[in-house]
Order: sequence, then C-alpha cells, then structure tokens
Amino acid sequence: MATFGLIEYQDASPEVRAVYDDIMTTRKTDWINNFWKALAHDPAALKRTWEDIKQIMAPGALDALTKELIYVAVSVSNQCSYCIASHTAAAQKKGMSEEMFKELMSVVGMANETNRLVAGYQVEIDKQFQSTQP
Amino acid sequence: MATFGLIEYQDASPEVRAVYDDIMTTRKTDWINNFWKALAHDPAALKRTWEDIKQIMAPGALDALTKELIYVAVSVSNQCSYCIASHTAAAQKKGMSEEMFKELMSVVGMANETNRLVAGYQVEIDKQFQSTQP
Amino acid sequence: MATFGLIEYQDASPEVRAVYDDIMTTRKTDWINNFWKALAHDPAALKRTWEDIKQIMAPGALDALTKELIYVAVSVSNQCSYCIASHTAAAQKKGMSEEMFKELMSVVGMANETNRLVAGYQVEIDKQFQSTQP
Amino acid sequence: MATFGLIEYQDASPEVRAVYDDIMTTRKTDWINNFWKALAHDPAALKRTWEDIKQIMAPGALDALTKELIYVAVSVSNQCSYCIASHTAAAQKKGMSEEMFKELMSVVGMANETNRLVAGYQVEIDKQFQSTQP
Amino acid sequence: MATFGLIEYQDASPEVRAVYDDIMTTRKTDWINNFWKALAHDPAALKRTWEDIKQIMAPGALDALTKELIYVAVSVSNQCSYCIASHTAAAQKKGMSEEMFKELMSVVGMANETNRLVAGYQVEIDKQFQSTQP
Amino acid sequence: MATFGLIEYQDASPEVRAVYDDIMTTRKTDWINNFWKALAHDPAALKRTWEDIKQIMAPGALDALTKELIYVAVSVSNQCSYCIASHTAAAQKKGMSEEMFKELMSVVGMANETNRLVAGYQVEIDKQFQSTQP
Repeated sequence: MATFGLIEYQDASPEVRAVYDDIMTTRKTDWINNFWKALAHDPAALKRTWEDIKQIMAPGALDALTKELIYVAVSVSNQCSYCIASHTAAAQKKGMSEEMFKELMSVVGMANETNRLVAGYQVEIDKQFQSTQP
Repeated sequence: MATFGLIEYQDASPEVRAVYDDIMTTRKTDWINNFWKALAHDPAALKRTWEDIKQIMAPGALDALTKELIYVAVSVSNQCSYCIASHTAAAQKKGMSEEMFKELMSVVGMANETNRLVAGYQVEIDKQFQSTQP
Repeated sequence: MATFGLIEYQDASPEVRAVYDDIMTTRKTDWINNFWKALAHDPAALKRTWEDIKQIMAPGALDALTKELIYVAVSVSNQCSYCIASHTAAAQKKGMSEEMFKELMSVVGMANETNRLVAGYQVEIDKQFQSTQP
Repeated sequence: MATFGLIEYQDASPEVRAVYDDIMTTRKTDWINNFWKALAHDPAALKRTWEDIKQIMAPGALDALTKELIYVAVSVSNQCSYCIASHTAAAQKKGMSEEMFKELMSVVGMANETNRLVAGYQVEIDKQFQSTQP
Repeated sequence: MATFGLIEYQDASPEVRAVYDDIMTTRKTDWINNFWKALAHDPAALKRTWEDIKQIMAPGALDALTKELIYVAVSVSNQCSYCIASHTAAAQKKGMSEEMFKELMSVVGMANETNRLVAGYQVEIDKQFQSTQP
Repeated sequence: MATFGLIEYQDASPEVRAVYDDIMTTRKTDWINNFWKALAHDPAALKRTWEDIKQIMAPGALDALTKELIYVAVSVSNQCSYCIASHTAAAQKKGMSEEMFKELMSVVGMANETNRLVAGYQVEIDKQFQSTQP
C-alpha cells in the first residue's frame, strides 16, 4: 500500500483537485491513477511533477507515442513495475501496436546488453564520436 | 584502453573481417568503431552480437531513428558514456535533430525521476493497468 | 518466500540468538525483521552485516535520522521494495515527519533526473569541482 | 565534451541569462557550472530544471546540507561522476565536514550492499512494515 | 500478469513449439517456464534469445554452474525478482549448494558496496591496472 | 583525483599501516592500490571494509577465482570503471584466462538483457520456482 495511502478526488483539497481536473482534461480520461493519488500528499510536488510531465510529454519534435516508448524503455531498464504497467497502458492508448512493443523490448534488451559489453571490455570512445560534438 | 586492445581490419581473421565488412556495408561507412574492435577478440560473440543488433535495429514497426532514440535513452539511464557518445552520433546520422535530442533528454530525465517517486511512495499498480493485459 | 525460509528465534542457534538479542537491545524492540531471519542461514554473514550496520548507523557526525534518510534515498534509487518499506518505517521511528519524507522524495527524484541529464548531455567536470579536492 | 558544447554568459540569450543570473544570486557565486551551460541549449529545460531544483533544494523540513547529502548519496549509487564531484563540492560549501562525508559514504555503501542481500535472499516485507502505512 | 499473457505449448505455432522442444530437450525438463511463454508472442525474439542463451550458457572455459552463479549475481544487482527466482532454481539444479549460494550473496553484496565507495571517493584507476591491458 | 587524495604508506598512521601490511601480506604484493589509499582517510571504514573483503573473498565453497569473476560481473553491471579494471586484473592474477573473461562478458551481457525482457513483459514467477524455496 502507498506510504501515506491514496487521496481520492472527493477527499482532495481544492489545489489537488485542480491538478486532478487538469490531468483528466489533458488525458481525456475520467479517473486518476494511483501515482498522482499517492503524490497528492505533497501538493507542491504533485503540481510541479504534473506540470513538468505535461510540458515534457506534449508532442513536439518527437510525437507523443515516441515519448511514451522512451518512458517505457527507461522504466524497464530501471525495473520499475508500476511504471512499466502504467506507461505500457499509456503507450497502447496512444497507438502502440503489439509489434511496436515487441520491437521496443528487443531494443531495450540489446542496449542493456551492449552497455555492459562496452563497460566490461573497457572500450574507449572513438575520436569520431567525440568529433560529432561541436 | 580496451582490456585486450583493439583488432584492426588488417590484423583480423577472415571470420572477423566478414563481420567488419557486413557492418560497413550495412551502415554505409568505411570504418569500424572501437566496440566491435574490442569485441573481436571473441569472434563468436562478435558475430552473435552484430547479427542480433542488425536484426533488432532494422526498421520494422518502429523506424530506425526511433530505435536509436530508445538506445540512447537506455544508455543514458545506465550511465554508459561510450554508448551515449556512439548512439547519439548514430541517431544524428539517422536524422535526429537537436530539438529531438533535447526532448529525448527531458523524457529520460523525467522517467528516471518518476520511477523513483513511484518506488518511494510505494504505489500499487492500478487494476486498470492490470486489465490492459489480456 | 525467502530462499531458505526464515529462522525464528526459538529455532536459532546460540550464535544467531546472540545477534538477534543484540539487534533487539540496540533497537529497543522485541522482534526481529525478516531480513535478519533470512540472512541467519549464514551466521557469519549475519554477524558481519549486523556489526557493520550497528557501527555505521550509530550517530556520529551525522545523526541517526539523517543516516536513515540516506538509506531510504539509496533504496529508492535501487528500487528495493523491502528496503524502502523497512527503512521508511525505521526513519519514522527515529523522527522522520511526513514533511521530511516528502522533501526526501523530491530530492531523490530530482537527483535521479539530473544524473541522467548530465550523462546524456555528456557534461565534463568543471575544474572548480576538481580543485575542491586537495 | 558536452554534446552541443557549453553556452557562456556572454553568448547567452536574455532568457538563458535570466536563469544564469538567478542561479548566481541564489547560490551567491559568480560563475555557472557546466551542467547549466550544457543544458542551456534547451532554454525551456534549463528554466524548468533550475526552478525545480531551487524549489526542492531550499531549506524546509530538511535543511540545505541534508538535502545535498541525499543528492550525493543518489549520485554515488548511480555512478554519476559529474554529479558526485559537483554535489560533493556543494555539500562542502554548505558545511559538510570530512567526517560527515565519510559517514555518508559508509551508509551509502552499506545500503547498496543490503539492498542486494534482501533481493538475493528474496525477503518478503514484514507485516509490521506494511502496517506503518495508513 | 504478463503483458500479452502466456502461450502454452498446445496453443503454440510450429516455430514456437520447435523452440519449446529444444528448451526442454536441452534442459532435460518437461515444462517451459513463464519467461519463454511470455516472449513467445515474438517468435523471432524467442528464437534469437534462446539460441543466444543456449550458446552462451553451454559449458566452456567456465562450467555451467559458474555461469549460473554469474547470472544470479547480475540479476540480484539489478533487482530482477523473476530472474533471481528462476536462476537460483537453475543454479540449484546444476549443483549449487546452500553454502555456495551464501558465499555468492556475500560477494555480490560486497561488490555492490565497494562499487559505490570507489565512485564516492572518486578513486582514479591505478596505472598498474591499466598496464595489465595490452 | 580522489576526494581527499591518497594516503601513501610513508604518510599513514600505525593503524592504517597495519591494514596496508595485511593487504600486502594476504595478496602477496608489495603495493597498495588507490582504493585503499583513498579510503584510508577513514581508518575505521578502511579496517572494516578490508576485513569484510578478506573474509568474503577467501576460498570456501566457491574458489577465489569464481569469487573474482562474480565481482567483475557485478562491477560491469554497475558501470564502475575502477572496479572493472581492478577486479579484471585481480581475476587475471588468480588464473582467469582470456577465454574465461570472454565467456564471463557474454553471460553478464545476456543476463542484463533478459533481466529487462522479463521486466518489460511483466512475467510472473512460476510456482515451480517458488516451490524450490523451502
């Protein structure tokens, strides 16, 4: 169970409700997932985190689905079960097909493998990769 | 320096050269980066890793650039300096703009942050996220 | 379930009981938590780990609560559910308020975020930070 | 070298300069460290990250030094060299003694060790730790 | 529950069955564990991963048990519950005694501790360790 | 450079020298590597860490080389450059052949890959793996 429990909409303060409302409006849903209800015990953190995510996850040079795929990739690398479940669901909602998910997993697995091969073999950065930096 | 040093093309066995050739052909480049030269001390691992990467990174339901972005995201989460340098360069070559890179970093940073907020607040998985699973 | 199960006080060897007794005396509690009961299958590791923790967690230049907060911070970064639950409880017992916990989480989240931004942007260490080292 | 290089004050846009000025004023320093100069290529991320850090690291229920210690603890767990160097320097500036640093390291080391013992022995969360949660 | 559920033998396509059969033959068992059943939704990944594991885990310069111990060590460091459970079982089947497991855990714990002490104290690599590299 | 610099033998206090002497005697070497010289600023931590390592790394149910391989495996997973360099050298000294190292790397890479596939596919632990636990 969440450390301080979950704050439901009907029990929330006006400032927490304002964030909940914005989450539901932005995401076009009628419910709030547990992460926000757990974080709502700290209204400043709730507001800051939501506004950051809203800004960061909005489509830009990368579309919303690509951003969700990246979120899943990080969450899988970090072994965060909640985040894997929630962002896999979010990615599906934004159009991730089963095929996309499977390719995503293969890339994440491979990257985690070669990250260690590189470290283990103590490979030095090629000057060509340094020179791509201005 | 790499644990066993780097195997240059002119010093490579035929089986290693065959992999090097395929890497250069596939990537349309005329050089081999240090990772492969370090791994070439183990020709079986070189061949297996290259063939896996070639299969996994080929465009499919996800395009080649999206796959590189995911590779960078994982490498950044794992603090693998070599992999960050090499896959950032690879992503740039496949069309990653500066704007895309910056958005990528913001998503990776955010995901790493919320992964820990979720863990710290001990948030349970919503039944709605479980039910997206068949 | 723990790999080898849990060793309860009544089933414990004298050397394990001696550690259990010292844990309860030091912590002013009348029970032993599962970590120690699982580790008790290896009495040498039990004794070594407990004596290390007893020495390290004792108040010194840092007070006992600050040390618990640091323990929670590490456990959250590592996604260790058991450790988050047990050390959050320990911190509460040592005086961590809800407000302290919330600020702790915000710092841990932020640090995990900027750790990756630094890696992703490949930032070099400023000479000023090197010079703080004698 | 940083991926896009570093943006010095004299080359910065007015919005970047405004953040740099606020950093120097808040921290009572006359220079900007490389992290911000690297991030300044993304003025929105620069502003967001700085404002978050400013809010989160301000003294509250936890004092500023304790927050820096936690920042160091996370950075050490994540093997972020830059962050370890910069936040160790920041902690020293805020009053961290050599003794405090050494105790900090011992706790961080211990936590990383027991996090793995818990995982390896597959220890279940005690019901007492669950019941500390409302 | 696994993201796409588990594919049982009777529901599997011929190509998936061929991998399942090879797993059971190679491992001299009459059942397939969940990892493969979950991965079977991506037959190409199933085949590639199994063939890689089969090649990598076969006895060579390192015997099969040593390889399993290493697998457990990595899984514990990464906090992967499933992998800890499955590879601990596999190691037991290959001859890991309780004493071996306990020593393994002590080494894994210690390595995780000193990895952070090294990072935290910002220790530079001795020239002697560089010179062991050709 | 190490945070507080390195303490050379000639500058060390008697208690630090006693540990240095024991390290050199135990390891049959005539020099001390930087890790210990950096940690020597905290004589209690130096002594505790050395005695733990000496106890843990001594041959038992697992031989000394196997323990070093495990140490390398963890250090590679954690991206600890110093630890990879020092424990690779230590393993070589204890008899690790080039072939062993290469197999070790393959296992470490594979384990890091499948750890993430398991997490990403949200695979549940088979009851058979739970039942191997008494």
